[in-house]
Parts: sequence; C-alpha cells; structure tokens
Amino acid sequence: MADLLPVDRALEIVLQATTVLPAESAPLDAATGRILAEDLRADRDHPAFDKSLMDGYAVIAGDLASGPRTLKVVQEIVAGADPASLLPLAPGTAARIMTGAPVPPGADAVLIVEQSEAVPGDSRAIRATAAVRPGENLARRATDVREGDMLLAAGDFIGAGEIGVLAACGRGRVRVGGRPKVGVLATGDELVPVGESPGPGRIRNTNGPVLAALAERAGAKVTDLGIAPDRESALAEAIEAGLRTDMLVLSGGVSMGVHDLVGKVLRSLGVEILFERVAIKPGKPFTFGRRGAAIVGGCPGNPVSSYVIFQVFLRPALRKMAGHPVPRLATVRGTLTGPVRQRPGRTGFYQARARWDAGRLLVEILPTSGSADFSACARGNVLAIVPADSASLSAGDPIDLLLLDDSADR
Amino acid sequence: MADLLPVDRALEIVLQATTVLPAESAPLDAATGRILAEDLRADRDHPAFDKSLMDGYAVIAGDLASGPRTLKVVQEIVAGADPASLLPLAPGTAARIMTGAPVPPGADAVLIVEQSEAVPGDSRAIRATAAVRPGENLARRATDVREGDMLLAAGDFIGAGEIGVLAACGRGRVRVGGRPKVGVLATGDELVPVGESPGPGRIRNTNGPVLAALAERAGAKVTDLGIAPDRESALAEAIEAGLRTDMLVLSGGVSMGVHDLVGKVLRSLGVEILFERVAIKPGKPFTFGRRGAAIVGGCPGNPVSSYVIFQVFLRPALRKMAGHPVPRLATVRGTLTGPVRQRPGRTGFYQARARWDAGRLLVEILPTSGSADFSACARGNVLAIVPADSASLSAGDPIDLLLLDDSADR
Repeated sequence: MADLLPVDRALEIVLQATTVLPAESAPLDAATGRILAEDLRADRDHPAFDKSLMDGYAVIAGDLASGPRTLKVVQEIVAGADPASLLPLAPGTAARIMTGAPVPPGADAVLIVEQSEAVPGDSRAIRATAAVRPGENLARRATDVREGDMLLAAGDFIGAGEIGVLAACGRGRVRVGGRPKVGVLATGDELVPVGESPGPGRIRNTNGPVLAALAERAGAKVTDLGIAPDRESALAEAIEAGLRTDMLVLSGGVSMGVHDLVGKVLRSLGVEILFERVAIKPGKPFTFGRRGAAIVGGCPGNPVSSYVIFQVFLRPALRKMAGHPVPRLATVRGTLTGPVRQRPGRTGFYQARARWDAGRLLVEILPTSGSADFSACARGNVLAIVPADSASLSAGDPIDLLLLDDSADR
Repeated sequence: MADLLPVDRALEIVLQATTVLPAESAPLDAATGRILAEDLRADRDHPAFDKSLMDGYAVIAGDLASGPRTLKVVQEIVAGADPASLLPLAPGTAARIMTGAPVPPGADAVLIVEQSEAVPGDSRAIRATAAVRPGENLARRATDVREGDMLLAAGDFIGAGEIGVLAACGRGRVRVGGRPKVGVLATGDELVPVGESPGPGRIRNTNGPVLAALAERAGAKVTDLGIAPDRESALAEAIEAGLRTDMLVLSGGVSMGVHDLVGKVLRSLGVEILFERVAIKPGKPFTFGRRGAAIVGGCPGNPVSSYVIFQVFLRPALRKMAGHPVPRLATVRGTLTGPVRQRPGRTGFYQARARWDAGRLLVEILPTSGSADFSACARGNVLAIVPADSASLSAGDPIDLLLLDDSADR
C-alpha cells in the first residue's frame, strides 16, 4: 500500500489546492448559510435609550419603599415614543409604560402591571402593591450593546441568530464569502439517464444526482453536466466545459481499466494531477487535480465510494472556497453497538446510524453488500471512521464519527 | 405559575393542532430535504446481471488453482456491453473485463489486473500470477437488491443517499410531503425596516428577518409580511393576509400592555386561541392558535424569546406539516463547563455553544444581558435545557441540548 496516500495527507493536498473565492455582496435575506466576509460593529447603542422591559408603570423606586401606595398616573408611554417628548416624572406619580417604550426622566424603575391595582373611582391613579428596586424591569441605554462594539467577525457562520445581529445594525446587504459553482459529470458507456430504462448490461446514472444533491446541500450552485461516454474526444469536451466551474466533480473512469480515461483526458487538458490513489475504503481510486483556480475531483464509479469521497474531501474544499475559517469537519465520538472488521491499510469510512440513548451516542454500522450497494447510503446519519491500522473494533469501543450534512434534519 | 402551561404540554397542543400537508409530486433534483410520501420498491435486480467489481480478467477459478498459468485472452468486455452478446468462456481462456461490465457465461471469478503480467511476444495472452476463489471480484445478479425489495418507506427523510436509491429505481419524479408556506409578520409602532435609520425611541425590525431565516432553514417557503402597526384595523388586515399561509408567525404585541393587540385581533378574526402563556424562559407570553388548517404562533417581541419559541415549538410543527414521522426534535446530552442558575418554575432554554473535546460534548452557556440582547443569538449551536424545577446546575453536570438547525454547518 506504499503508493496509497493517507487520508489526512490527501485532505491537506486538497485544501492547499483549493482557493478561497472572492467575497461578494448579498442581500440580508440571501445571507443565511454563508460566511461573513467583514467585521461588524454596532452602529448605535442597544438599547439606544433607557427602555422598559415590561408592561407596567414607570415609577420612582423610593416612592414605594415604605409600603403599598397610590400613585397618580400622569402620562402613557408607548413603544416608539420619542424620548425627548416625555414629561419628567415627579415624586408620587407614575407613567403607564409598555415593553420597549422609553423610560421618562426621573423614573428609575418599572412596576409590572401585575403588581398594581385600579383605584376605585379614580381612573387616573393606581395602587402599587409591591416595592421595586432601583433599575428593576428597565434596561439602561447601551446595556446590551455599545456603539462601536464588535458584534460579528469575518469568518463567522451566518445563521438565523447572526441575521438578527446584522438586521439590528441596519445591514440590508452584507459582504459574504463566494458561493462555489460545481459541475457534476458522470462518465461511462454503461450509464443511462434516470428517466430511461437501462438496456441489457446498462445501469442508471445514480452518481450524478447524488453528487449534485451533496454539493447543493453544501451550499454550492450546481450544474449537472450529464453523462459523458468513454470516448476521449467527447469526454474532453465535457470536462473542458466543467473546468469553467470552481469544482468539477467526476464519477467513474478512474480505475485501472483500458476505458478509464479520466486521468489521461485531464492531463491532456492541462490539469495538474496531485494524486490518484488514497488509503481510504471505500474510494481508493480517487483522482484529484487542479487547473488554475478550478479543482477537479475524480470519484470512483461505485456509488458508495463517490458518496464517501465527497463527504471526506470535497465538502471541506467547498467550505474553504466559501470562506469558512475551519474547512475540515469536526468529528464526534460515539460508542459502537457491534463489532466491525476490516483489512488494515486503509482508513474505513462506513455508513452508520448514530442515536442518543441515555446520554451516550450509540453507533450502528449499516449492513452492505459492498461499495456498489447504493441502498447502503440511505438512512445513515454519520460515517464511522475506522483507523487504517485497525483490523477490528468491538461492541462498546469508542469510534470517531463524521456527521453527514443532513444529520440534524433526519 | 399555575396559569403557565408546561413546555411539553404546550408542544403537544401545537403538534395536535398542526395538519400534515397533502403530498405532492416533485422532480428528483428538488426532492432533497423533503420527506418521502410513498414506499419505494426496486423496479429491477441490482446488479441486473453478473457483474465485474474490478478491472481485470474474467476467468474460470479452477484454471488457476494449481499455480501461475498463461491464459489466452479471447474477448474484451466493457461496461455497458449486452450480456447476451458475450462469448462463453472456454477453459484456459480469459476475457479482459472492466469494472461494471457483465461477466461472460462460464467465468466464475475476476482476476484483478494487478495480478496479471503481459506475455512477451503474445499480446493476446496474459500470465495469471495469483489464484482466485470462485466468486471473487464479481457480484452475482441481485446481490445488492432484488426486484420488488422495499428500499425506502413513506416517512423517510430524503438526503443525498436516498436520492441515489430513487435514481437507481428510475424515479425522475417522486411523491413527497408538502412544503409549508409560512408568513412572517412583525408588529409594533416602534419598528422600522432594516434599511431605515430608527428615529428617537424606535428600533429596527430584527425579529422579521430572524424568523424568516429560521423558517426557510426549516424547509418552508416564506413570505415576509413586513411590519404591522399597533392599530386594530391595520393589524387585522395584515393578519388576515397571513392566515392564507400554513403557519403565520407573529412577533410582538402579546404581552400585557394596552397596545398588545395580537390576541384580541386574532380572536376577532375567528382564530381559536389554544394557549397564551407557557412555562418557558425566555418566551413566556407565547400565544398559539389556529383557524382552519392554518396555525398561528404569536411570539414575544424580544428577539431571544422569539428565536427560542421558533426552535422549541414552530420548527417541530413545520416538520409535522412536511410529513416527518417524528416531528419532535431529539435532544442530545452534554456536560456543563460552568454553573447556571435560574428562578425555578419555567424550563430554561439558553443559547449555548457545544464542542466535542476528548470524547465529551462540553457545553458553555453564552453570556447575555437578557432576552432583549439580540447579540446573544449569534455564535450558539445548541439551546441548553434547564428543567423547570432546577434552580441551579454546576460545572460537570449533564445537560440536555436541542441542536440548532445549523449546528452541523458551523
């Protein structure tokens, strides 16, 4: 196995060859899932004024220190009121106030509505039934955020929470990392499109749709380049078109057969091949190269292999392109529910199902008849990683897991 | 707290009131992330013929049993060849064969190309340098899948692996659960759109963009209904428009202020209010109702509250609408890195960051100045759940976690 590249080294080469795309401007409602490409500082204080946190009455806390008391209600302040328009609060008075409304000058606390009672016969007064501490139920200006505070940094992932921060700072548009363009090309004379019935000896193209779905889920804009035959000229034409994308993903044509033309055609088109064989199971004959800023991943034709190669190598490359500061995917630790065996020499990535049970993450490796068994890619939520030097692991052993990109949705 | 509904009971009511949307037909390339609404049986055997798993030579295993031997190469079989066109293999002969190509009659194994040598002076012969077992390196017809096998079931999540199974079965279109339509409406006179500079006493609408991003990430088709003022007629008009969706999400106007009109207006429009206060922190004044098949979630105006309400109640409701058989989100178990305190009585859902370290999932609760602190929603990847009857937890204590919908992408 001396000619097989270890998985870590191959991933290092893939990431070194991958270029971060130029940042671009996106409207806020299209920024979710992207990587922020600028630092964000607060453009104002939050709150920008002393603000009530509850519905109730703005009061002077000292007025209520010696027990229940009737207060005259002198104004009503709604959310959105101009703080400059408010009357100062005199001792013995209160202002009806809503959540989010500005606190009037002189008031130093808010009595919640549940701690007040109506005064019979006087609709302009209330009876306070509890005391309040100074500062209670209100937020002073700049309590949450001070103008100029750094709220987000370039490289942050933009989820819904970050959308809120950007919105609060008035960012209708935002600088984000580029969105990778991916071309997917299946190769092989035996393939027919999904919509056709395969003639004798032929099979449907499953890798194209699977790789397209994976790339799309990873945030890429995908072009399906269809099926290329095992003829050099036609293959070269299709690959040349695919090299206009940021990442061309090929499947098939990378084994040792006389019709495995992918490597030859890639070289003829000026693609620098960086490696062709990786110590991974499944997926050993993974061909990887680059031309200019475009990278090319030539996956094996077996569906399980190409699925694994995408998750292990190409998904991190897409993260790097999009500006993610940590392109490598974190692994998590689970516990095997049954034994697993392999021939040592290659790192195994096996389809598995992980589930939490009584605080432990239990991992069941899914049965398969081999790397051609497309049905084994369904229903998994992790890839269980068996180190290259392991021949077997037992039930109860810890095992590292790569979370599949849809593990949280299943 | 007798009038506060426990979180589990509130979620039960939400899910009971939520209708599963009718299934629909989707093209395969738009089916990722949806829920399958039909059982899928294999339309043919896989492989559909005895198939080579490697590049090499189809041979008769018995020919090689007694040591290295020269074999005459009588045909070359490429992937895609018609099995009926193949010549039967005679003893002492071999057929050059590619991965995926049909195995000729008479052959019972494939010798990999690496275990063969050229014969000097005879391009039509090879020397086999190793023995093979009968059946080695080939897959008999129907090894992976037999025609009629049930491969996927209604209710299965469609990830990239399932796309491959559907493609292999020729499903260019597929029945999937409906895609929920969600309307998002922020309410409050104090709100200005993100693109505007807030005047004195006013704030930008952050909840609208956040709730829209959350709903979209959960698979919904979102209509942003903008901002409604605190006036009954205008609010009623905007809500009526929103009730044409499957789920109307409101923010603001559900506290106890005189301008908190949402409950009143909902009732006036014939919405049945199922509850108005939940024992949850943050998010207590969560109003939930339904009219016909539409459900309405009235979230508090505080950004952290509406974020939490969406994750805890509305995301499971969207999963149910879309046909997910397990709408409730699974929780996972982590270990606290520091203490947490709360006033007992309400279940706490706190923004937190979980990371794997030496096989343990460590959970750090993010600091916040309160439920108005929008910046606290950023950078988290889980909500840490503190039971309603807990006043405090310590570093090292186990804690249940709700994974946020983007936890795998961060």
